[in-house]
Formats: sequence, structure tokens, C-alpha cells
Amino acid sequence: MEIAGMLQQVRERAPVVHHLTNWVTIYDCAQVVKTFGASPVMAHAAEEAADMASIASALVLNIGTLTPDFVDAMLIAARRANERNIPIVLDVCGAGATPLRDRECARILDGCHVSVIKGNASEIARVAGLAVTTKGVDSTAVNQDMATVAAELARRRACTVVVTGPVDTIAGCDGRLLRVANGCPLMARVVGTGCMAASVIGTFCAVEPDTPAAAAGGLVCYEIAAEIAAADAAGPGTFKARWFDAIAALNTDSIRRMQRVS
Amino acid sequence: MEIAGMLQQVRERAPVVHHLTNWVTIYDCAQVVKTFGASPVMAHAAEEAADMASIASALVLNIGTLTPDFVDAMLIAARRANERNIPIVLDVCGAGATPLRDRECARILDGCHVSVIKGNASEIARVAGLAVTTKGVDSTAVNQDMATVAAELARRRACTVVVTGPVDTIAGCDGRLLRVANGCPLMARVVGTGCMAASVIGTFCAVEPDTPAAAAGGLVCYEIAAEIAAADAAGPGTFKARWFDAIAALNTDSIRRMQRVS
Amino acid sequence: MEIAGMLQQVRERAPVVHHLTNWVTIYDCAQVVKTFGASPVMAHAAEEAADMASIASALVLNIGTLTPDFVDAMLIAARRANERNIPIVLDVCGAGATPLRDRECARILDGCHVSVIKGNASEIARVAGLAVTTKGVDSTAVNQDMATVAAELARRRACTVVVTGPVDTIAGCDGRLLRVANGCPLMARVVGTGCMAASVIGTFCAVEPDTPAAAAGGLVCYEIAAEIAAADAAGPGTFKARWFDAIAALNTDSIRRMQRVS
Repeated sequence: MEIAGMLQQVRERAPVVHHLTNWVTIYDCAQVVKTFGASPVMAHAAEEAADMASIASALVLNIGTLTPDFVDAMLIAARRANERNIPIVLDVCGAGATPLRDRECARILDGCHVSVIKGNASEIARVAGLAVTTKGVDSTAVNQDMATVAAELARRRACTVVVTGPVDTIAGCDGRLLRVANGCPLMARVVGTGCMAASVIGTFCAVEPDTPAAAAGGLVCYEIAAEIAAADAAGPGTFKARWFDAIAALNTDSIRRMQRVS
Repeated sequence: MEIAGMLQQVRERAPVVHHLTNWVTIYDCAQVVKTFGASPVMAHAAEEAADMASIASALVLNIGTLTPDFVDAMLIAARRANERNIPIVLDVCGAGATPLRDRECARILDGCHVSVIKGNASEIARVAGLAVTTKGVDSTAVNQDMATVAAELARRRACTVVVTGPVDTIAGCDGRLLRVANGCPLMARVVGTGCMAASVIGTFCAVEPDTPAAAAGGLVCYEIAAEIAAADAAGPGTFKARWFDAIAALNTDSIRRMQRVS
Repeated sequence: MEIAGMLQQVRERAPVVHHLTNWVTIYDCAQVVKTFGASPVMAHAAEEAADMASIASALVLNIGTLTPDFVDAMLIAARRANERNIPIVLDVCGAGATPLRDRECARILDGCHVSVIKGNASEIARVAGLAVTTKGVDSTAVNQDMATVAAELARRRACTVVVTGPVDTIAGCDGRLLRVANGCPLMARVVGTGCMAASVIGTFCAVEPDTPAAAAGGLVCYEIAAEIAAADAAGPGTFKARWFDAIAALNTDSIRRMQRVS
């Protein structure tokens, strides 16, 4: 997988990545996309969601602070994205925490074709129909082989499924299974690490049509940068600032040397 | 007061702290809770506010960017919190700046039982019924002994009242009065210092049933970390990043050595 | 132009700067105003927008994440601002990206008197009536002399027009043309640089009645601080933290020595 080539494409084409996302991490989602060299835009009004999706190269949806009205606007953008054949990434943030989240996840997945479903273990398990509960937005233990759960969900929804964690699992609808072992413990100490991961996947999907490869490539870059940032960080505050520095400074050498994808 | 023991409890139990808060500092409120070792969740939809409160160990309400609809959702969450006997912290952010804020504060306080009312001097004075005006969200001078004002409000509302400032005043409904003298001037240069304080109080109340002690303990930890961060910060930007580092690194020794509570 | 004197006024008077702004960069807009020494307040409820404008010394409007309801609240605040003769700064964030943005910009400009219209080249070109398209919120190339476009728009709307870019152009309604050549390339790598610029302009307009001079003075200070911060920053993450440090530390000497306004 030529990950450095994908990063080069992001930097050269600077694709517009349209988000309808949550209000907690919206800034960081925009900043991570910009730091990778792309052009983030956040626009949630029902009156412009389709128009903004029309000038974008990828659409990222995140239900972290959802309301039913907000999901209505997501579906307006998503239908336009489907018409234009641009990829949609759905972060099922907090799925399994409340009935509303489960219901609205199903409404999105039934109302458009999503290219990538992304979540932590308990979120993905819940979207796959298992009887697990998510602890707010933090994952709970799931007594299941998540690779099997993800592969089954990917087949059923005809999409790529990404399960984030110390090792990320990426299941393609064609049965492919990739694992990304980059990253570091400090990532879990920063609010928005998961949301930003979805934005990065969307950014790479905007330039790379092989969706599982794009998802893996984006995560590898994002998490290599985290490893570099963690090396001299005193805690989660300085780590986060250095993480953006490291993303901006990523180069072919560090990607080839540090990537742990299988 | 065994403050280090409370911090240990937060880190071990990692309680879910549910917020309906303002859109300005929502990220920082989540990050401070996570940095202390707890699990923040921000969920404001009326359709899930009660369900999210059902899996939480504390509820934090903040009226910084209120609308009447938003306060409706707060009350849905708050009633569930009351049924479950989990503590509610109310940050009366901007009380005294507009009639809407005064009216909605009263509606919240009359519509549920709040465990802790937190604000700066002019906000608390206004909630207590004095004819003061808040300068947006920044405190104005109050010609009153705030300990007396807080104690009277605590008695009347049967709750704990926290007045933040260079020295924080904590009044219990039982007549107890605590003062926290930790902190540093750079705190006032960072937007969200007050909002994060309410989130920290909520986090400590989630593990410590003695509410005035929990409020004081949380503030001591938060403000000791600020003192540590300020020691080598060049200004408010780097200070803030180091503050999160210092919160994550807090230990029993520094708490016992630096705490200034009376 | 005595820019250091304006900064001194901001720090001494600490004016309240009321914002109805976007949800992406709302924190940074508040933080930059506070770091300059003023008092930011973010309040968007229709029920309090006029009351908050009544205690403010400037009003900043930003359509970055607009909805029609939100623009209704902007107009309520704006009419009160006009009645009180306090300056209004409008950031036409994303104008030219969707018909909604163009329509709502026109509604704001027709519904109140704005003191400063601020945008990047393609945003201002679109508001001036040219057939350009903005790439989300990032500027596209405009084949026009922007000084002429800005001057014409300033004359027509009887306001000051600010076009940000590597060199900022400021056109007064009286035909004056100022250029600010401070700043550095890292500014374009940080989400919110443009939004914060509008907040800074609002802050300086709160103390300086000569609007083009206030806009230029604010931009000079903001961008000198960016140059100082960039000198030892490893990337956009640490740059941003140091930028706030540098704003707080600005002094007469560095302003006089580094200012590049003509």
C-alpha cells in the first residue's frame, strides 16, 4: 500500500471535506483536515447541506451531539453525496449509549449509502446488532471477536467498517481485513481522537477510491504523527499541539519506516 | 480533607459526567473531565437527555449560550438526575447580564434540585437576588460580603454554593464555609476557566457524597495544576496546554504540599 | 497611526465584544478577544440578543455555520447595535460557497448598517456581486484587482471593507486605502485565523472610532504576534499556542518596530 502517495495526493489536490459533525470536537475535526493539507468545511443548515456537498470531495457525518433535525440535514447532504458518488464516512459516536443514537444510526444507514462506518468496539458492536452498551462515548468491553463483527457488518451494509482501538481493524465489503497497529496511549487521553480519525479517513477517501486502503492509509499517517508527538510530550495538553505539528511535518521516510499495517 | 483520595476515586471509577453546556467551552469541559480520569459525555437532545442522565454519575448544566429550548432539555436531564439521586452542578454563567439569563436560572432552580450552584461574584450575587449587573460573562465588583451572600443562598436553596475568584468561597447548606486559595492570575486569561471549574466539581461530586468537600477538593486539584503549569508558561496559550499536562500528572505529594484550603 | 495607543485603550477599557458567530471557531474568537484584554461574550438566543448588544461596545457577526434562524437573531442584535451606534463587524465566512450564504449576507447587509465587512478575496468578490465561487471557506483565485473591488463595495455599502490575505487590503467608505503586510504563512494553516481577525477588528473598533484605522491597527497587532510566534514554532499546533502568548505580550516597542502598514 503506497500510503505516502495518498498523503501526497491530499496535499496536492486539497480536497474539500464537508462535515456535519458534533459541537464538541468540530474545531479539531476541521483543524486535522487542514493540517493534512485538505480544505474542511462545516455546514449543517438544511438549506445549504446539499449545495455544500455538491462542491465537496467527501462527506463526514458524526452523531456525537445529534438531534433528529440535525440528522435530517445529514441525510440531505448524504443523498447529494450519493448522487455525486463521493464517499461518506459515518462516525457512530456514542452508538449504544441511548435509544436515540441507535435509532438515528439506523435511519442514516437505511437512508443513504455510507462508504465507511467508523466507531470504537462497543459502538460498532451495537450498530452490528449486538446487545452491548456504550459508556457515553467511551468504549466498553465487548466479548466478541471484533474482526468477525466488523466483517459481517461490512458485508451486510456493503461498506467498509473501521473499529478503532489500540489496534484498528478495517473490514472491507469484499472480505479484506486490514489492521493498523500504530498509535500510542496518549491518544486515548485527548477528547476528539476518534472524531478526528473519521475526518482523516474522509480526507483520504477523497483522493483514494480503494476505500479500505484509504481508511488504513489515513489512520497510519494520523497515528504515526501521534507516536512522534508523544515522544517528547509531558502530557495530553502539549501532546495535542505537537500532534498537529507532526501531522504537518509527515514525510515519506517516516511513513515507510514507522507504518505498522497488516 | 483527603483530597488525594478523591482524585484516586475519580481515576479508579472513571465516572460518566453528563453535560448540557455552552458551545464556547464545550471541548474544554470534556477535556478537563477526561484529563482528570473520568468519562465526559455531552448530549443535549431532548430525546436522549434523560437516557444519558440515566447512565451518568453526575450532571453538569451551564447556561453560557442558553436558549429556552436548551433549558427545557436541561430540565429533562435534571429530573432524571434527581430521580436517580446523582448530583447536579449548575454553572450560572452570565447570570445578571440579561433578563433571559436571570429568568432561566430561576426556572432551573425551581424545576429541579441542584446540588451545587457555581458562579463568579456578580453571577452568584444576582442569583441570590441582589441588584448587580454582570459584564457579559466577566464578574463585576460586588459591594457585599460574598461569604454571607453564598451562605444565605445555600441555606435558601438547600445546596452548596461556590463563588469562584482569587479565593474561592464554598458555602454548604449546613452552614459550613470553606475557602480555596490555590490558583494563579493566568487562569483569568483563559476562556473557559470558570466552565471547566464546574465540570471538575461535577466530576468530584460523582465520587464524593460530601458535596462541599467534593467541590473544594476538585477546585484544589484544578488550581494546584494551574499553579504548576504557570511556573514555566510564557503566556495564556502555552499555559493552557501545560495545565492539562499538570492535571494528568497530579499526585498525592503535590496535592498535600500545595493545597490551601481552610 | 498610533496602533500601540489603540492596544493600550483595549487593555484599559476592556470593552465587551458581543458575538453571534460560528460553532467551529467560537472558542478561539472568545480567546483572542480576551487575550487582547477585552471581554468577549457569545450570546445567540433571540430572547437576549438585543439585551446583550445593549451592554456591548462592539458586535461581531460571522456566518460560518449560519442557519436562517441564527441570522434572524443576528439582525435583532444588529438593530440594537445600530440604535446604540456601536460598530458591527460582519465576517462573510463562506460567501460564494452556497446560495444560502449569498442570500443571508445580502439580508444582513440590507437589514442593518454594518461598519466593517471582512472576508478573503473570493468572499468579498462575491459579496461585491462578482461571479466567483468560494471553495467552502477557503479563498479561490479572483481575477480582479481586489483594492478596486473593495473600494467600490465600501462606497456602495458606506462601510469599511477588509480583504484578508498575505497582504490585507482595507478600503474606507471615504476612498482611503490601507494595506497591512504583516503576518506569516503558518496563519493559513490554522483553522479560525480569519474568524479571529474579525473578532480582533471588532475589539479595536470598540475603542477607536476611525474604523479603517481600527481595522488596520487590530490586524497589525494580531499579525505581528503571529510573526513572533512563528519564529520558534515547530508547526501549526505549537504555533497557535504561542500566538496567544505573543498577543498577550505585545508591547509598544515591537509594534512600532515591526508594523508594516501603508
